[in-house]
Amino acid sequence: MSDVLELARELISRASVTPDDVGCQALIASRLQAADFACEHLRLGKVDNLWATHGGGDGPTLVLLGHTDVVPPGPREAWTSDPFEPTIRDGVLYGRGAADMKGSVAAFVVAAERFAALHPSHRGRLALLLTSDEEGDAIDGVRRVADLFRERGERIDWCITGEPSSKTKLGDLLRVGRRGSLSATLTVRGLQGHVAYPDKARNPIHLALKALDELASKRWDDGYESFPPTSLQISNIHAGTGANNVIPGELQVLFNLRYNPHWDAGRLIEACTAILDAHGLDHELRWHRSGEPFFTPEGELRASAREVLARFAGEPPEESTGGGTSDARFIAPLGAHCVEIGPVNASIHKVDEHVRVADLEALPELYLALIERLLA
Amino acid sequence: MSDVLELARELISRASVTPDDVGCQALIASRLQAADFACEHLRLGKVDNLWATHGGGDGPTLVLLGHTDVVPPGPREAWTSDPFEPTIRDGVLYGRGAADMKGSVAAFVVAAERFAALHPSHRGRLALLLTSDEEGDAIDGVRRVADLFRERGERIDWCITGEPSSKTKLGDLLRVGRRGSLSATLTVRGLQGHVAYPDKARNPIHLALKALDELASKRWDDGYESFPPTSLQISNIHAGTGANNVIPGELQVLFNLRYNPHWDAGRLIEACTAILDAHGLDHELRWHRSGEPFFTPEGELRASAREVLARFAGEPPEESTGGGTSDARFIAPLGAHCVEIGPVNASIHKVDEHVRVADLEALPELYLALIERLLA
Repeated sequence: MSDVLELARELISRASVTPDDVGCQALIASRLQAADFACEHLRLGKVDNLWATHGGGDGPTLVLLGHTDVVPPGPREAWTSDPFEPTIRDGVLYGRGAADMKGSVAAFVVAAERFAALHPSHRGRLALLLTSDEEGDAIDGVRRVADLFRERGERIDWCITGEPSSKTKLGDLLRVGRRGSLSATLTVRGLQGHVAYPDKARNPIHLALKALDELASKRWDDGYESFPPTSLQISNIHAGTGANNVIPGELQVLFNLRYNPHWDAGRLIEACTAILDAHGLDHELRWHRSGEPFFTPEGELRASAREVLARFAGEPPEESTGGGTSDARFIAPLGAHCVEIGPVNASIHKVDEHVRVADLEALPELYLALIERLLA
Repeated sequence: MSDVLELARELISRASVTPDDVGCQALIASRLQAADFACEHLRLGKVDNLWATHGGGDGPTLVLLGHTDVVPPGPREAWTSDPFEPTIRDGVLYGRGAADMKGSVAAFVVAAERFAALHPSHRGRLALLLTSDEEGDAIDGVRRVADLFRERGERIDWCITGEPSSKTKLGDLLRVGRRGSLSATLTVRGLQGHVAYPDKARNPIHLALKALDELASKRWDDGYESFPPTSLQISNIHAGTGANNVIPGELQVLFNLRYNPHWDAGRLIEACTAILDAHGLDHELRWHRSGEPFFTPEGELRASAREVLARFAGEPPEESTGGGTSDARFIAPLGAHCVEIGPVNASIHKVDEHVRVADLEALPELYLALIERLLA
């Protein structure tokens, strides 16, 4: 059994549901220390974070960014085999985290070990940053580590995140940015009453409809570089207790904005508030900023990644800024160029999550090739 | 203790929560038979209905319309005294049904007995119609009795409903009509998806907003006689499961129309459907018709009722078409003029429901005076 497959299986067998690391990082640290990495454990709240660096001479710092936590597996009986007992069937490795992202993390470790062995005096620094809270609140994970780095004046030039980015074939997609995500809980207040006496009530649903339509219909922009247009989606709307003869006193709406670098959270909040105010709504807005957008323009990292992926996949990758959010959102503001490269993502967060063994075994070579281009 | 108070207490002590009559109608029938009324018990489904008539000569038929069922009392401990143990405190009779409408029913019976004794050969017919399902589904109650009357060719000229119509003082309001009520459950279908990929989903909330605004903003009419304008109120709106990253697949909306005689249910359904179709919504509408409106124009019944109430209350009553629905909606379509006269309604459907003993004891005289004007 290959080294990367063995390590991936060892990691999957630890049920490290967010924010529990269950010893994954200690295991990795012991290997990296043996490979001359300096390891720093950052326990923040209930979250484990590992910062491991190799080299310290002049030159750029390249970070391999990953997480050891996984989303809950759901009911055991929905899985073909136990989600925490890694199982190979027909050349495919099954288990929670196989694709998101213990496979990538294992490949990072193996690639880093090999790189350190092959190039003990490489330029710059090679670092691994791992957290056990990427899938959860993501507060005491990379967000806080990035704050710490900012205080320390830690410089990061390049970051490769191991998020499962590939669509159908390893290396067919290079993620070069992500949209920002901003969520709001909107409460519109009216005045409860009986439907037979509408003059004595103020129906918050009626009052809100025009403003909600304006929010939902607004053309925010026409896209940015390879980003799709900024989009606002109302995900939840609730008013009324079931009774058909009562005008409710309050309307609750959740909406979410996915936005490209035309916008930042502050300006979006202003724009939404202005629309609600213009309609004279008695309302309250609570905002949850889940992450500003990031975008990696053409440069050494993006060009190197493109070339390495093209060699592995046989054709140049699609370069995309789609998808949700990742921890790269916290590293990019430190001034780093960030890309995301990982296995096929079709099964992530689902039952029978899996990664092809051949893809898993190709990953360390792929990462190693890219690290060598940047630091060797 | 007066006859009406004693009978009201006897009726209240029977816990006749819809659709149970608990012998109220049998008790009343035995009294009315003793007063020379012909009594017909109409057991329809789980509902008891009583049709009692006196006289049969030429001339008009006047129906006293009431119900023996009451709404559930809720928790006993919320009441000062047991809801089914009629209790007098400070000149007020407390108990479930005291005002809605066992007090009126007792007054009907006492007034009918006295009228039959005083005017054994009156013109036309005096009738009582009682049901044990006015507060519930109201299907096997007066609705089905009216169907039966239609088949029989039973003619009704006038109807006095004992619903608690008074606002602060017995006789201060004469109800001469009620709006119609029509409810709809609207389902708007979209296509579920992730908020990050709005192009792959169809947000049913977004799709519905303009149509809902048009429904809610529409000016249906400017009122009719003393009716307020027809009004549509959205009472419930629900979509989404709480997750802020999922575009829901479906939106559920409940709305209710309270409408005056400018409209009937069929034309309202057409108008609403046309609006939803014009917006191209993939939708389903389920309608619940709770009753067409009725209106009693100037005539012998309305004039007589006004004069009698003015004499009892000291000034002419407000003549109103407000409020919810009552069983008069089923009698009016038979061609009858309908009015509603009953005690103060402030406590109905609440804990510590009550009627002033003085009001209860005045009611038989009030009803008797009106019956005498119409049939003596």
